[in-house]
Amino acid sequence: MTYLANVRLQNPLVHNITNIVVTNFTANGLLALGASPFMADAHEEVQDVAKMSGAVVLNIGTLNDHTIQSMLLAGQSANTHGVPVVLDPVGAGATAYRTDVTQALTSQIQLAALRGNVAEVANVVGERWSSKGVDAGEGEGDVIALAQKAARKLVCTVIITGKEDVISNGDNTYIVSNGHPILTKVTGTGCLLTSVVGAFLAVSNGNFLEASVEAVSFYGVAAEIAARLTAHQGPGSFQVEFLNQLALVTPEIFKEMSQIKKLT
Amino acid sequence: MTYLANVRLQNPLVHNITNIVVTNFTANGLLALGASPFMADAHEEVQDVAKMSGAVVLNIGTLNDHTIQSMLLAGQSANTHGVPVVLDPVGAGATAYRTDVTQALTSQIQLAALRGNVAEVANVVGERWSSKGVDAGEGEGDVIALAQKAARKLVCTVIITGKEDVISNGDNTYIVSNGHPILTKVTGTGCLLTSVVGAFLAVSNGNFLEASVEAVSFYGVAAEIAARLTAHQGPGSFQVEFLNQLALVTPEIFKEMSQIKKLT
Amino acid sequence: MTYLANVRLQNPLVHNITNIVVTNFTANGLLALGASPFMADAHEEVQDVAKMSGAVVLNIGTLNDHTIQSMLLAGQSANTHGVPVVLDPVGAGATAYRTDVTQALTSQIQLAALRGNVAEVANVVGERWSSKGVDAGEGEGDVIALAQKAARKLVCTVIITGKEDVISNGDNTYIVSNGHPILTKVTGTGCLLTSVVGAFLAVSNGNFLEASVEAVSFYGVAAEIAARLTAHQGPGSFQVEFLNQLALVTPEIFKEMSQIKKLT
Repeated sequence: MTYLANVRLQNPLVHNITNIVVTNFTANGLLALGASPFMADAHEEVQDVAKMSGAVVLNIGTLNDHTIQSMLLAGQSANTHGVPVVLDPVGAGATAYRTDVTQALTSQIQLAALRGNVAEVANVVGERWSSKGVDAGEGEGDVIALAQKAARKLVCTVIITGKEDVISNGDNTYIVSNGHPILTKVTGTGCLLTSVVGAFLAVSNGNFLEASVEAVSFYGVAAEIAARLTAHQGPGSFQVEFLNQLALVTPEIFKEMSQIKKLT
Repeated sequence: MTYLANVRLQNPLVHNITNIVVTNFTANGLLALGASPFMADAHEEVQDVAKMSGAVVLNIGTLNDHTIQSMLLAGQSANTHGVPVVLDPVGAGATAYRTDVTQALTSQIQLAALRGNVAEVANVVGERWSSKGVDAGEGEGDVIALAQKAARKLVCTVIITGKEDVISNGDNTYIVSNGHPILTKVTGTGCLLTSVVGAFLAVSNGNFLEASVEAVSFYGVAAEIAARLTAHQGPGSFQVEFLNQLALVTPEIFKEMSQIKKLT
Repeated sequence: MTYLANVRLQNPLVHNITNIVVTNFTANGLLALGASPFMADAHEEVQDVAKMSGAVVLNIGTLNDHTIQSMLLAGQSANTHGVPVVLDPVGAGATAYRTDVTQALTSQIQLAALRGNVAEVANVVGERWSSKGVDAGEGEGDVIALAQKAARKLVCTVIITGKEDVISNGDNTYIVSNGHPILTKVTGTGCLLTSVVGAFLAVSNGNFLEASVEAVSFYGVAAEIAARLTAHQGPGSFQVEFLNQLALVTPEIFKEMSQIKKLT
């Protein structure tokens, strides 16, 4: 797997329609990684931008009627032109509106990948899941089953992030054990991961599962190094160093620290 | 007063409808502190989000017709369900539109607290105040009178920040002397303080005055430490360290450095 | 040329209608520099805000119908009241929509300055320019001719940034050689430069060309120092230090490091 090197070589254009909290962090994270972010949500241009991009990333963190329509237009344009689409269903299940919107999006757009926490993914595919006290550490078996079921239902790669990350396309499933808890103290780290997955898919030649696994593990490695370098300093320093590491982690460092387990 | 410890223990959900300049900084500040930020302004869901939150924070920094309606819906839902509402009237008085909007908001929503500089608070309650050369240092007596008058008129806790901070519920009034001038060199530090007040109110069991006083003093202590640690480095380094200190300042450190004076 | 000192002395109000990716970074950069940012795009108030400001900065990075109308209202109010307007045509040429919008803005608003990369500026004035492999390093002669032609057509100062920066009012033309490649690894560094130009124009007494040249060179000097101080650390650390340097670079340091060449 050499997707990281290819992202840096090809600088793929990643079209993001994302929430107003994380636009800056997402753009800076993609630039640090070596990709080329493009934020655009005007109805007049999203189809053009999606068409010319290597991937389209949709994030419903601060959705409204205007951006939902932008997402539908961009997603369908991407589908028409063979551009992979990644969805981040932020807060699906937290309100009825978010659950409805994610179900509308997934019924009208063919995803290449879905990235969320276990409660969000469960809600997208109509499973009930309490949004308290749920992570990949407790009830790991259920998370794996959920990932596989969601992947089969949506016919895409599903990434459930938590203490451990589960990635499945329905047939094959991986567990990634990289990452660090301080990621939860910086806003938008889940959102940026979804966009980083988009960058990896853009250079994947259709190998969405493998590219997703590498993206998730790479991201976790960058977080581990940044957490070590800023131990005891706090989330402000971690965030700065994490952006540094997205630029500095080489394929060699990644290979050495990557913790990926393929389930049989 | 142990509200700081309770914020970290309870991780209250704080619903923010805020301006597009400070969303990221606000979310990161609340996460660093130990609260749980939720940004949402879609009319379809703001009532649901307000209802499930520990506090609702409204900020008119980059208001428009859509978000004003969002604020009314969220604020009234919060009122119905006993969730405290905090308003930050950014730029009230700077344009007629902002003055009108803040007066509409305060007439239709019962606030738990209002947080602004002296010119903003004066404009909210229909007093004239020049927006140049005004801070709590000059004419302190007037600022105290204004805080008391505004608190009685709005029937809420009023926080006027400046060189010294004045906090009053109309009956009792406190002066907080923590803080640092470099806060004015980082955008959104006033806005984030308002959201931090929201987090403290969320765990206050209705003691809005005391919780506001502690929030303001805690925030100033974090700024003092961050300013000391980054002396002569500039506002970029200060901002990073300030986020660190929002996470690192313990109740013990806070108690030692807090400068709160109750007026008789 | 002493515009830098005057910015710090006068703290000019700079009204920004800019994209959702860079609002925070733009405000923090202007504050660090010593200017006073005001973000506002509500149709009800943009004319008032533009009128009271020292400069108006329009940026189409994430344009939509609402903000285009805001820009027209603010720009025309600025024209009426003698307030200089600076335009950043982000992505002009990337989509037909952006090209159309920039041409509409430039036909209805008299600019004081236009700031973009070579492809953007070319598209604004209806020249064709490939958006790949183009910078001031290759084909420098053509970039100079383009800047001069655009300046004459729009009757304003035109700033084309790249490896070297070309600034022209049609009659006189300067080349600035300050700056650092890592600026391209932080989102919004072009957008912030446009706002910094606005701050300098606000104190320029109508000397838009000279003030633009100084702004561009100052910005590059701050980047050079920040890049040296954070060498090998990555774009996260660079961004923090760059904000520091916008505050710390004095007129003396600027004069010593400034690399400005006037073409005959």
